[in-house]
Amino acid sequence: MVHHLPSATNLDAVASAISHRTRRAIIDRLARGPARISDVAQPFSMSLTGFCKHVRVLERAGLVRRTRRGRNNTLELAPQPLRDVAQWLLKYEQFWNSRLDRLQQFFAQQNQKAQKIKRRDEDELH
Amino acid sequence: MVHHLPSATNLDAVASAISHRTRRAIIDRLARGPARISDVAQPFSMSLTGFCKHVRVLERAGLVRRTRRGRNNTLELAPQPLRDVAQWLLKYEQFWNSRLDRLQQFFAQQNQKAQKIKRRDEDELH
Repeated sequence: MVHHLPSATNLDAVASAISHRTRRAIIDRLARGPARISDVAQPFSMSLTGFCKHVRVLERAGLVRRTRRGRNNTLELAPQPLRDVAQWLLKYEQFWNSRLDRLQQFFAQQNQKAQKIKRRDEDELH
Repeated sequence: MVHHLPSATNLDAVASAISHRTRRAIIDRLARGPARISDVAQPFSMSLTGFCKHVRVLERAGLVRRTRRGRNNTLELAPQPLRDVAQWLLKYEQFWNSRLDRLQQFFAQQNQKAQKIKRRDEDELH
C-alpha cells in the first residue's frame, strides 16, 4: 500500500467534489463498476454537457478515471482520495462518541436514582 | 441519541464547508474547546471580515455555534454534521480494504511461488 500525506489542496478538491448530490450519485453509480459515460449520464435529467462538467470536477479531484476507446468514454471510480477526507473527519469521531458516552452516563445515573427511590420505598414499606 | 437521516442539502453544505483549509483549521481549533471569535481569528493572516465569512459558512452548515455575550462572540464546535459526511464516505471503506486485500493476496501468492521454487531447488540438490 502506498502511504502518502494528503495535501490540503487535494482535500479541498475532494471535499468540494463530493459537495454536490449529482457528483455523489455518480460516485454511487461507479461503485457498482466501470461504465460508459452515456450510460452513467442516462438517469440524470440534465444535458450531457452539464453532466460532463460534474465528471470533470470528479476527475480533477482524482476520484474518477476516464478511458477513451474510440467513441466510447468509460468512467471508473478511484476511491482512494475519499479515504483522505474520511481520515480527516474521523479525528472528530471521539466527539460523537464522547457525546454518546455522556448520554449513556446520564441514563445510567437516572437508572441508579430510580433504583434508590425504589429501594427507599420498599424499606419504608417493611 | 437522536437518529436522523441527513438531507442531501445538508451533506452539500457540510462537505462544502470543509472544502477550505481555513475552515478546517477553525474546526481543528474549536475541537480544543470554545473560544472568543477574536482569539480564534488571531493566528490567521486575514481581515476579521474575511475570517467572519468563513465562520458564517460553518454556522450555516451547522458546524459552529456562535453565542453573543455583550461584545464577546464565543464560537463552539458542533461536530454532529461531520458524522453524516463520514457515514457517506465510509460506504466506500470496503473499496480501500478490498484493494488492500488484493495487494495482500498478491504478496501471499508471490511468497508461495518463492517457496515453491526454493523447495524445487532443494529437491534437485538432494
